[in-house]
Amino acid sequence: MANDTITGPWGFLVAGVTCGIKKSGNYDMGLIVCPTGAKAAAVFTTNKVVSAAVQISKQHVKSTGIYAVVANSGNANACTGKQGLNNAIKMCTETAKQIEVDPHKVLVASTGIIGEQLPIQRIVTGIGRAVDKLSASPAGGLSFAKAIMTTDTKPKQASRRIEISGKRVTIAGAVKGAGMIGPNMATTLCFLTTDAAITKPLLARALKDAIGNSLNKLTVDGHQSTNDTAILLASGLIGNRPVTKQCPRYRRFAGAVAEVCDDLARQMAHDAEGATRIFKVVITGAVTKADATKAARAIADYPLVKCAVNGGDPNWGRIICAVGSCGVKLKVGKLSCRLDDLTVFRNGSPTKFDAKKASKIVSQKEHTITVNLGTGKHTDFCYGCDLSREYVAINADYHT
Amino acid sequence: MANDTITGPWGFLVAGVTCGIKKSGNYDMGLIVCPTGAKAAAVFTTNKVVSAAVQISKQHVKSTGIYAVVANSGNANACTGKQGLNNAIKMCTETAKQIEVDPHKVLVASTGIIGEQLPIQRIVTGIGRAVDKLSASPAGGLSFAKAIMTTDTKPKQASRRIEISGKRVTIAGAVKGAGMIGPNMATTLCFLTTDAAITKPLLARALKDAIGNSLNKLTVDGHQSTNDTAILLASGLIGNRPVTKQCPRYRRFAGAVAEVCDDLARQMAHDAEGATRIFKVVITGAVTKADATKAARAIADYPLVKCAVNGGDPNWGRIICAVGSCGVKLKVGKLSCRLDDLTVFRNGSPTKFDAKKASKIVSQKEHTITVNLGTGKHTDFCYGCDLSREYVAINADYHT
Repeated sequence: MANDTITGPWGFLVAGVTCGIKKSGNYDMGLIVCPTGAKAAAVFTTNKVVSAAVQISKQHVKSTGIYAVVANSGNANACTGKQGLNNAIKMCTETAKQIEVDPHKVLVASTGIIGEQLPIQRIVTGIGRAVDKLSASPAGGLSFAKAIMTTDTKPKQASRRIEISGKRVTIAGAVKGAGMIGPNMATTLCFLTTDAAITKPLLARALKDAIGNSLNKLTVDGHQSTNDTAILLASGLIGNRPVTKQCPRYRRFAGAVAEVCDDLARQMAHDAEGATRIFKVVITGAVTKADATKAARAIADYPLVKCAVNGGDPNWGRIICAVGSCGVKLKVGKLSCRLDDLTVFRNGSPTKFDAKKASKIVSQKEHTITVNLGTGKHTDFCYGCDLSREYVAINADYHT
Repeated sequence: MANDTITGPWGFLVAGVTCGIKKSGNYDMGLIVCPTGAKAAAVFTTNKVVSAAVQISKQHVKSTGIYAVVANSGNANACTGKQGLNNAIKMCTETAKQIEVDPHKVLVASTGIIGEQLPIQRIVTGIGRAVDKLSASPAGGLSFAKAIMTTDTKPKQASRRIEISGKRVTIAGAVKGAGMIGPNMATTLCFLTTDAAITKPLLARALKDAIGNSLNKLTVDGHQSTNDTAILLASGLIGNRPVTKQCPRYRRFAGAVAEVCDDLARQMAHDAEGATRIFKVVITGAVTKADATKAARAIADYPLVKCAVNGGDPNWGRIICAVGSCGVKLKVGKLSCRLDDLTVFRNGSPTKFDAKKASKIVSQKEHTITVNLGTGKHTDFCYGCDLSREYVAINADYHT
């Protein structure tokens, strides 16, 4: 059976362990080691308040080779002042000591509750246990995916295999994130591995583009956390002819990274806190790309739209309302809205659509809302999920 | 007993009736008549898609005297094209015919489902019944407050009495709105009456300022509808020396209008869909007023903060996270946060605060979150309410 976890690509040893940060006793620490050193790229939260881990990893990722990534869940180590910073450094130095590398060549990531200090002694002990447990098996990869979970109900993993200069390159990823998810970055934590040989700038570009069109297009509650981090490690061990420019080989590689990220983003949307359905919002006819992005997000974030989707209610009026209030340019007389391929609003007036068909569309596991602003030629999209219960008990039933 | 409804001020006849827009059979049409003609001021939604009623009322409010306001709930008459516009006009002409005035001197307001045509024949019949039922009694005022309700669980009314040049001036208001409430305007529909004599420009100014500091400071789900309308009618019948400039008499009047609007805004917050608690967010130390406004709203709108409040959980990390991600200038090393008078985060580090006391504060019916951005001297505030259940079952319990 193929190994679809982050140990799928050659050159990575991975483990997940329990070190006692979470009261539940579930896995709460993960470790990725690349014994030969990996080229690394990372994207971090743009929140102005960032975790200690983000501060440290932002520096360390500049190193020429990364040998390990240590991650914990259950505690974000954010808003923890100088002590928090020292603890993040300690996680790196302790990992580095165990595997005998320079601490600056270790990355660190944390997720969980904000504002509490890490139980650093337990973590130090945990790092030792994780090193002992390192494995290139699928079980090792899965244990890592579990170790980064917070309110996620299931581990989220994806992988793709492509050919580059006759070699079978693997790209794999594990992600966590169920709430506190807004565009830029809708990730919380995302770890990607590959055995491709590629230059660091191109690796960074492939990651940035992939995140931009996947995790950054997902909104659960419209906010990004203090800790969001996506890391892509390339061991180069598959031995392909190194990707050094934006040639077809690069595009194939970047395309596969994008597919893995898109897969992970959709898994995140489906596993968003309380979500039962996801939807894609596509904006067309915008006067600028920025307007398209803004309008797509406004719809995906609008609680009343999210509740309507939960109720399987084709309440397109709320979609139009969200677009109208988000500040983008639009022509009311040309404004149109489709649910999948069913037009419900055309040129500013409602159509006589089949209500049963509309309800059926909105009741699917996934559907697409398309809104044409009627002002230009730009387009963008966003993934969203429904919002359930209490708030819904009032809003989803309001139509009938 | 004092009449605290919109029939409290001299010169207004009011009614609420059932005309069959709502399937529930509840009141769904309200009528306010000022037989002597009132000076009128209004504030409307800034949504780019506006209801037919808003389009018509925006024109009619320019008239020198307003004799009636006709309002319906259960149908927003928005996104209804030309037919919707004709129906809004019909509501004015029919009311005007019944009370024998110029149709341009009648205002109209609608609230409810978007995108469906009004049952105009029922409304025409209803207007006739409302005219027959007009009354200056408290019961008349209350019936109107009920007639504008949608998902509201109770009618919302407020009034204040002040003395101006020896006369006892009354200002009263009725408001509806439980969801689709964002700043600018957090109103949906708001109707205010007064018997003060005051010039039209000052009346408009008093309304604008009052709304700006009350209904516009309230966010339930961060969006404004296609229909938001606030109307202030002044009959002038109390016979005070007319308020013609920004003198102490004007300030007293404007202050009372502001108090009525603040009272109504808080009632709306408490009756927001699913809400069990409200909170006030105060931002200090902002580099600009706009930053203060933005940060206050970001916190009040943040689902995870709203869920924490629902759970009585002093999860201040989410507050800091919301501030950090909203794009305002801040100094992390000077960032501080208080819950009522309890400092939980000071100069970028957590304090050792009494957790029980913090939980008690957040568990109150109302509490205040104060955040100092540490960058300047500007300040602003915003009212928010909690978010309940399912989403909460995951988020509110996450801290423990």
